[in-house]
Amino acid sequence: MTTLALAPDAAPGVLAAQQQAYADLKARGLSLDLTRGKPSAEQLDLSDGLLNLPGAGTVASEAGTDVRNYGGLDGLVELRRIFAELLDVPVAQLIAGGNASLTLMHDTLTFATLFGVPGSTRPWGQEEKVKFVCPVPGYDRHFAVCEALGIEMVTVPMTDDGPDPDAVAALVADDPSIKGLWVVPTYANPDGSVVSTEVARRLVSMPTAAPDFRILWDNAYAVHHLTDDEVHSADAIGLAEAAGNPDRVVMYASTSKITFPGSGVSFMASSPANITWYKKHLAFQSIGPDKVNQLRHARFFGDAEGVRSHMRRHREVIAPKFDAVVSILRDRLGEHGVARWTEPKGGYFVSLDVVPGTASRVISLAKEAGIALTPAGATFPYGNDPADENIRLAPTLPPLSEIEVAMDGVATCVLLAAAEAATGSLPA
Amino acid sequence: MTTLALAPDAAPGVLAAQQQAYADLKARGLSLDLTRGKPSAEQLDLSDGLLNLPGAGTVASEAGTDVRNYGGLDGLVELRRIFAELLDVPVAQLIAGGNASLTLMHDTLTFATLFGVPGSTRPWGQEEKVKFVCPVPGYDRHFAVCEALGIEMVTVPMTDDGPDPDAVAALVADDPSIKGLWVVPTYANPDGSVVSTEVARRLVSMPTAAPDFRILWDNAYAVHHLTDDEVHSADAIGLAEAAGNPDRVVMYASTSKITFPGSGVSFMASSPANITWYKKHLAFQSIGPDKVNQLRHARFFGDAEGVRSHMRRHREVIAPKFDAVVSILRDRLGEHGVARWTEPKGGYFVSLDVVPGTASRVISLAKEAGIALTPAGATFPYGNDPADENIRLAPTLPPLSEIEVAMDGVATCVLLAAAEAATGSLPA
Repeated sequence: MTTLALAPDAAPGVLAAQQQAYADLKARGLSLDLTRGKPSAEQLDLSDGLLNLPGAGTVASEAGTDVRNYGGLDGLVELRRIFAELLDVPVAQLIAGGNASLTLMHDTLTFATLFGVPGSTRPWGQEEKVKFVCPVPGYDRHFAVCEALGIEMVTVPMTDDGPDPDAVAALVADDPSIKGLWVVPTYANPDGSVVSTEVARRLVSMPTAAPDFRILWDNAYAVHHLTDDEVHSADAIGLAEAAGNPDRVVMYASTSKITFPGSGVSFMASSPANITWYKKHLAFQSIGPDKVNQLRHARFFGDAEGVRSHMRRHREVIAPKFDAVVSILRDRLGEHGVARWTEPKGGYFVSLDVVPGTASRVISLAKEAGIALTPAGATFPYGNDPADENIRLAPTLPPLSEIEVAMDGVATCVLLAAAEAATGSLPA
Repeated sequence: MTTLALAPDAAPGVLAAQQQAYADLKARGLSLDLTRGKPSAEQLDLSDGLLNLPGAGTVASEAGTDVRNYGGLDGLVELRRIFAELLDVPVAQLIAGGNASLTLMHDTLTFATLFGVPGSTRPWGQEEKVKFVCPVPGYDRHFAVCEALGIEMVTVPMTDDGPDPDAVAALVADDPSIKGLWVVPTYANPDGSVVSTEVARRLVSMPTAAPDFRILWDNAYAVHHLTDDEVHSADAIGLAEAAGNPDRVVMYASTSKITFPGSGVSFMASSPANITWYKKHLAFQSIGPDKVNQLRHARFFGDAEGVRSHMRRHREVIAPKFDAVVSILRDRLGEHGVARWTEPKGGYFVSLDVVPGTASRVISLAKEAGIALTPAGATFPYGNDPADENIRLAPTLPPLSEIEVAMDGVATCVLLAAAEAATGSLPA
């Protein structure tokens, strides 16, 4: 990839112009926020039908159980069937949980730490060291769970087709302390890449020194398309089974960014052995998920097509926001060679790379001008972006008009920092 | 307490009569179930107003946040305020969680195992041994969590006022590996006892060899009264603070047996230090609880008095079932001296002690006659009731007519087993 930098001869002129632009920007006294991957109120409104569901008298599941009462660790089959179709997994291998797939991921690693997983010789917590491979840039909450549990993180680069499979394969082949890999297969957070079938096949077939190696396949954006090209990530669980590594992949998903983030339903799919293992430990923690909420969701969607058409309404709301981000970046920065950004076909983020060594400067300039950006380094383990170049932009929450103002301001900060770097005037 | 046994001279006559009664019972081909502490459908119907709440357009919390979106680990203050009043705890020290207090208890012990609690010198999982004091009879899911986490259980007897404080104090004074005590303070599972203020004061003030000793105060039945004498268990958190042991008590509660068991709201209250500790670890596992469901509950109840009057309607449904259990036990067994039972003022269970050595025989006789009872030993750690004498009866779920038939059958089994024991004909 081309190195990002301002041409030396252009630098003084850009510096002067952007110092003025930045002074004007600050003078506006903005208070804007591009930090949070949260749906906007307009998106949430799309699911307001849930607010009076399941409705009086609706208490029986398809299987005839009273959803109001205790029981049923697997979750309701009518909802699992809808998401099994969307996620390309067998219903029997998919469980529906509480309001957050983060909880399922956290608890998977917690149970692994305390008890080991199928194939472990001992609990992970009794190993001298446990490491995870983290493609970067990636999702800060994945990294936070690892850090909380004392799992050391090693990074590999992302490619347009997901994690670099050569880099991953090289790491895991000889080091038995490497127990896992994080993957966001569809419209990755933050770079929007989609794991191709070829990359998936390599990841699920590569030899691993650890006999209990797991890929945590966080399919958070499986149906979150932004274009007509509704891409489909690879069927990792099926491929893993075909490769003779049936227990390697554990998939997670949720309705957090489909219906209501705080009040949705989470899903977990894997091999029968992994699901049995998880439920064995889950049974000490829970008597069952919120089945009324699962029934509420099943009624609201009707079927998988109901989810798909619902997501097209989300797209109508948010695609213009992504378009605005990309077009402002293109207009303001395109000619200068100081930035590179993703143009995602789905998901919740735009990943912006700026001149190396200036990301934290851009973020602090923006902050001073009243534009909140995700903290520098957030997309890297331990908050450490070694090149100090990546910035995650989250355009779904603010209204379009605010995004336009904020992104124009961000462009000013990117250019100013690039000019400072090129002229040796970047603050220490 | 008097030893339970059939008078030797009466035994042959009782044996003959009950053998005949039992043959008649079996001939009826019953299929009845007294095992489960679940609300009946009639009780669940009392909360059907929840099925179309919070209602269209109701999305803002009292604090002005959009309950549909991410965030807010503490839970909604409007619901916490209602339960803070009912549980006698400061709102600021009470958090509202997901659909199960079991999850909060499980995760408290999981976090303690992995990280230790305030006052710990190391994670509990790194101690050579960790033990918990378990009053018996008690709640099987408490015991199961301990067993899953490798926490060894030592038992103390229950009294009419809760766990025997002398027995507890003697155990914890010198053994630093004893890190905690389970207590169900109000209408205990299964014996219905209520912890008095004096017992609570002793438990929260007694010297403990472990600096990080915790009482898990599972107030599952705080408002679940069966009589006009709406008893109130002691304010353990306040007493602990007054005793200079502010971090000793962690209280749990939920609406599982107030609204819908699968779809309610759980609560946890403790010292500010413990709540901060819990939320620190919770933040890796969750972005926040289901706030729509919390708002739904807040709207449904209105205020604490709304909960109290709602619970009186529960009482109308279930008190006659408890009355039937007790009156049948009294009528059928009272004159024989072969059983002792609780007459609870609240909660979900009747605890029945039979002739030592016959509980498992009673349960197996009942099973053969089509009456399912909680497995023998379930109310003891490791499923081991050393005297083989305790049986937990759960009368809320079946209709009254079934309870009457089932309890008459149970009485027959109790008498028959007692007669077998007294005549040396108890099967091995």
